Formats: sequence, C-alpha cells, structure tokens
Amino acid sequence: MAKEITNLNAGPAGLPRAALERAQRELLDFEGTGISIMEHSHRGKSYEKVQREAIQLTRELMAVPDTHEILLVQGGASQLFATVPMNFLTPDTSADYVLTGTWAKKAMAEAKFYGKTRVAGKGGEGESFTRIPTQAELSLDPAARYVHITSNNTIAGTQYQSFPDVGRVPLVADMSSDVMWRPIDVSKFALIYAGAQKNIGPSGVVLVIVEKAFMESGRADIPTIFRFKTHAENESMYNTPPTFGIYMMRNVLAVLKAEGGLSVIEAKNREKSTMLYGAIDGSGGYYRSPVEVAARSHMNIVWRLPSEALEDKFAKEAEAAGLIGLKGHRSVGGLRASTYNAVSVAGVARLVEFMHGFQKANPA
Amino acid sequence: MAKEITNLNAGPAGLPRAALERAQRELLDFEGTGISIMEHSHRGKSYEKVQREAIQLTRELMAVPDTHEILLVQGGASQLFATVPMNFLTPDTSADYVLTGTWAKKAMAEAKFYGKTRVAGKGGEGESFTRIPTQAELSLDPAARYVHITSNNTIAGTQYQSFPDVGRVPLVADMSSDVMWRPIDVSKFALIYAGAQKNIGPSGVVLVIVEKAFMESGRADIPTIFRFKTHAENESMYNTPPTFGIYMMRNVLAVLKAEGGLSVIEAKNREKSTMLYGAIDGSGGYYRSPVEVAARSHMNIVWRLPSEALEDKFAKEAEAAGLIGLKGHRSVGGLRASTYNAVSVAGVARLVEFMHGFQKANPA
Repeated sequence: MAKEITNLNAGPAGLPRAALERAQRELLDFEGTGISIMEHSHRGKSYEKVQREAIQLTRELMAVPDTHEILLVQGGASQLFATVPMNFLTPDTSADYVLTGTWAKKAMAEAKFYGKTRVAGKGGEGESFTRIPTQAELSLDPAARYVHITSNNTIAGTQYQSFPDVGRVPLVADMSSDVMWRPIDVSKFALIYAGAQKNIGPSGVVLVIVEKAFMESGRADIPTIFRFKTHAENESMYNTPPTFGIYMMRNVLAVLKAEGGLSVIEAKNREKSTMLYGAIDGSGGYYRSPVEVAARSHMNIVWRLPSEALEDKFAKEAEAAGLIGLKGHRSVGGLRASTYNAVSVAGVARLVEFMHGFQKANPA
Repeated sequence: MAKEITNLNAGPAGLPRAALERAQRELLDFEGTGISIMEHSHRGKSYEKVQREAIQLTRELMAVPDTHEILLVQGGASQLFATVPMNFLTPDTSADYVLTGTWAKKAMAEAKFYGKTRVAGKGGEGESFTRIPTQAELSLDPAARYVHITSNNTIAGTQYQSFPDVGRVPLVADMSSDVMWRPIDVSKFALIYAGAQKNIGPSGVVLVIVEKAFMESGRADIPTIFRFKTHAENESMYNTPPTFGIYMMRNVLAVLKAEGGLSVIEAKNREKSTMLYGAIDGSGGYYRSPVEVAARSHMNIVWRLPSEALEDKFAKEAEAAGLIGLKGHRSVGGLRASTYNAVSVAGVARLVEFMHGFQKANPA
C-alpha cells in the first residue's frame, strides 16, 4: 500500500478520494455504455446529463439565483483575465482593479489591451501583499465599467473576509482559489470566475457565474468564442467542452453535496485554518505569519521560519513524511499549506504535529 | 461483461484501450507517489515529465523539425479560429481562407474581427461541400498574411489528399480531425493546430505546431495569454495546463508509437476507409457517397441511404448492435462513420457486415 499522503499543493490540488474512486471504477465503462466518459460524444445523452448535473450542483451548492447564468469554459483564470475586459471594456471606458497580489496584477495587465484601468486599492506596500484594503481605503470610480477583485490570494496568503460595497458598479471576482470554500451571496456579484483546480475539480475547466443583464451588456464586436453570451446561449456546448474535466468536477461537487453542502465545508475549512494559525501563533515566534491577522486566508496559510535554510529543511522533511506541496511560491519563498476543500482535518493535524516536532528538533 | 462497442463518434472519439487501462490502473496512485496525476502540481517533477513526454512524442511521431515549436493550449480549435488571426492579422492586412466546410467558414468568420479575409477557394457550390478545390482552382493573394485550410472536413467528409502549394505565403492548417492519421511534411506549414479529441486524446487540449519565425512575427499588442510566443517561452506552462488531458494525450501517443508510428497507423487507416468505401460503392447504389471520389476523407466516411427513414432505421439498429455514433451531423443528415486512429479494423469489418445485412433486410 502507498504511504499516507497529505496533499497541500496550491493547485492542481488534492481531490476527494470518493470522486477519484468513482472515476476509476467507471473509467472503461461509463454507466454500462461500454465506453469511457471521455469517449462519449458531448452531444450524446450520457455526457449531456453529466454536464447538466455539474451546472445544477453548482446552482444548488452556491444558491445561484435565476438572475445569473452558470457557464463552464476553458483556458484557466488567466484567460478570463483577458476575456472579461474583452467583453466589457472599450478604449473609452475604465475598470477598477483592487491589487491584492500577483494574480490581481496580471488580471489588470491584460485589461489594458481593451480599455482604461485604474487601481482602486492595494493590499500592501510595493510588491508586498500582506493585507486586504478596507472599505474606507478603497477609491472607487462610480463610472467604472466594473470593479475587479481577487477573493483569495494564493501567493500572499490573504483573503477577503467580507466583500466590498461597490455601489452600483458591477463587481467581478476571480475566486479561483476559494470558490465554494463557504456559502456566499452570489447576487452581489456581476461575474465570478474560478479555475476548478483548487476547490472543485481538475485543471482545464473554469466556472463562470454571470449576471444575465451584465452579460447582455457585453460587446458583440469580439469573436463569437469569447462572448460569454455565446456560451450561455449554447449551454456551454458552443464548442466541444473539456468533457472529462467537467465529469470530474461533477464528481467533486457530488461529494461536497453529500458532505452536507457549503456550510459544513466552511466549518471544516475553518477548523483546519484555526489549527494551523494556532500552531504558528503558539510557536513563540519560531513560525511567523507575514500576513495581517484580519486578512489571513483560510485556503493558503503561509508562514516563515527563522531562516531560509530551516525552511528548506522543513519542506524536505515534511515531504518525506508524506506532507507534500509545502514549499512557498517561488516568487516569495517561505512555506505554504493549501488547505482546500479536499484536505482533511486529519491531514492538517498531521502537519501541526510535524510542526511541533520540527521545532523541537531544530531550535532557532 | 459489457457488450462489444465500436465507437464511430465524430469526436470526442474512441481512445486506445491500452491508454485508458493505463489511466485506470494508476488513477489513484501515479507512479508510486500516492496521489493521482490530476492532483500533482503542474510545477512538480511527476507532471512535468509527462508533459515533456507528450511534446517529445509529438516531435518524434510527426518528425517535427527544430524550426517549429510544439505547444499545448486550451480552448479547442474554435478558440484557435480566433487566436490565429488575433496573432497575425491587423486591420490593414488580409488572410486567405479556403472554404471546404462548416469549420473553415467559422474560422474565417472569427478572423474578420482582426483584419481582412478573402476566399481563396471553395469546396463546392453554395452550402454543399462535396470536394476539395484543386491547385488550379485556388486564387491566392501573394500578399496574404497567411492561407488557412481545413485539412479534413468532419461534416462534409472530405479531406486534402495532398496540400496546396501556396508559395511564400505562410500555410496555416486546422488539422483537428486528421492530425497524425499519417506522416506529413510539417516543414510546409507555418502553423498547424488540432483539437486532441479525435485522433490523439480527450477533449480540452489543443496541439499547436508553429514555425518559430512565423510565431515571432506575431503581434505583441494582444493579451499575453493569447500570444503563441508566451506559451513557447514558458514551455506551455504559462498558466496551469489541463494536466489530465495532456497526460491522456501522452498515453495515446505512446500507443501510436508502440504500434509502429504513423506509417503503420496510415496503413491501418487506409485499410478501414477502403473497406467502407468498398461497401458503399459495391452496394449497387443502395449506399451512396455524396463526396467526389478524389476528395473522400479517410477519417469521416459519410453516406446516404435511399430514404431518410431508412437512414434513421440504420442508425438505430446499428447502435443496438454496438456500432455507435453513426448519425450524420445534424446540419446535413445521412450517416457518418468516423474511423479515427483508435477505431480497429475489426470494428470497421463489423460495420461492413452490418451494412450488408441491413441492405438485404431492407430493400430499397
């Protein structure tokens, strides 16, 4: 038997065991059809049912109101950085971006090809993103075409605990790294997008939730494939979808539902982050969180050790102990535990135990 | 045991059994790592090795010269319809399109958002695409930024038997439905793109082979994510790739190599198409190919029966006999057998036998 692994990768991340086992069981013969779900036509009944179920489970789990469409598209969140402004910006209009990390900056950089952009707030000084700006700190343009935020910052380890009030301006959020970590009020958002590969599936699928009125206001003078409206009108079947990825997402969402839905998932996620921040704060300064307490992420918990040498040693020994994916992003160093939905409380308990042991064995 | 299925879907299509079995075997534990390949970081050694192998196998199987980059991107061929002109067209320049079917027309329609387009040839009259224009029939613009062709037409059932000479103008080909069906001279093409889901993998991955010099001539004033150069510079890891899809493509390419490479695959493909066209032509007019003989596709064999009622009956009874995916595209009707790489000669023999039996039982 393989050794017990706790997968703390930042994404692609761990998937619920039950979702993978289901896939393995029926990989060669999907529901008695004699062929794999990967081999089914996307226009056939077998696959269509799976995709509809993925969308229906999303609507149910997130309580998505009828005012909003649910789309499944390709290209990763990085492509949405470009297609959101392509749909909604023109050279004469401007969008507000709240810069809370690397990905927020990349999103704004792509928007510049389509219209004007404005920084409506920053999550720290210079290149250090250690906090989330408060409502009072935001400088919002009431004429902005939209305000873009990144709800959770995988590299910086920060997360919005509540969402800003942006008045009548449409709120757009990249939720790639914390979608479905807890229930949210979807009606506050004009558009939500999220790469599946952290909380809800494998890589290669992007979930988009878009308010119909906002979607209708999008440009028609852009290629058909990039219009959100195209995908809505064709039930995300305008072109061949990434069928296996959507099937896996369906399997993952079915597990989230079976576990009791997003309130139960949230309690589990908070338990995990509380354990980890407790271990950091209770270490007498040996482990140190660089993040402002009010902005601490429940998805990506980052911390430092007394030296980079100790950080390297920690990551290596943790990996040997089956705690994988702990090296911080190459741009900032340190350690990072990504405790997405599929990570178990028991796995985080193993990490906490390892932290205690490592500190004892390696005094500062 | 499930009944024997011959999967003749137009795509997503059948995959080699060995590629699927390999995936099933290691779905929960990839090479002793204790986690699924889907759960591995795309930046980790395990996954990186898989992606490099997929690219290396492509280079080997297609004998891609060093002058050309091999990229793996997302969004399907439909997205490339837009990103090719986005990279290479400007409002002042023009591209030539050879219209040989629905997909070629869609490709040209997306190009209009970026520059001028010109029809350099047509594959039939009006909306009927029953042939491939000859070299003499092409009207090429020597100043065109590129000439775009669709090497195989899934709906019309036509295919280029040899590629046109377009002089010094870069030749761009959508090879989604016949990539790797046989060896070709890649050096003749400035850019080849192909959705994986017919001959080389599951949906959600697009193979791009692009001449470096052509790629370098692309626009820099478009979003980073859409520049081919971005993906080349980052070894197709600029953003998170569709890791499982690329893993499956690797598995499929490994099978193609083990079977003896593309010359062997071509012989098998020609054997299948010869059997089917033989059955059509030998039916005394009961089965009828609407396609000009010189343009007949070896990938999508389309045919008609004496009546639509018989066509419906044929498709239904064939499906009940395990021959699935035979209904022609909804836009044209009739029957279509997609005999991509993974379809066995034995499977096609079963179809031919069924055709004989059906004709006897249902005289015109």
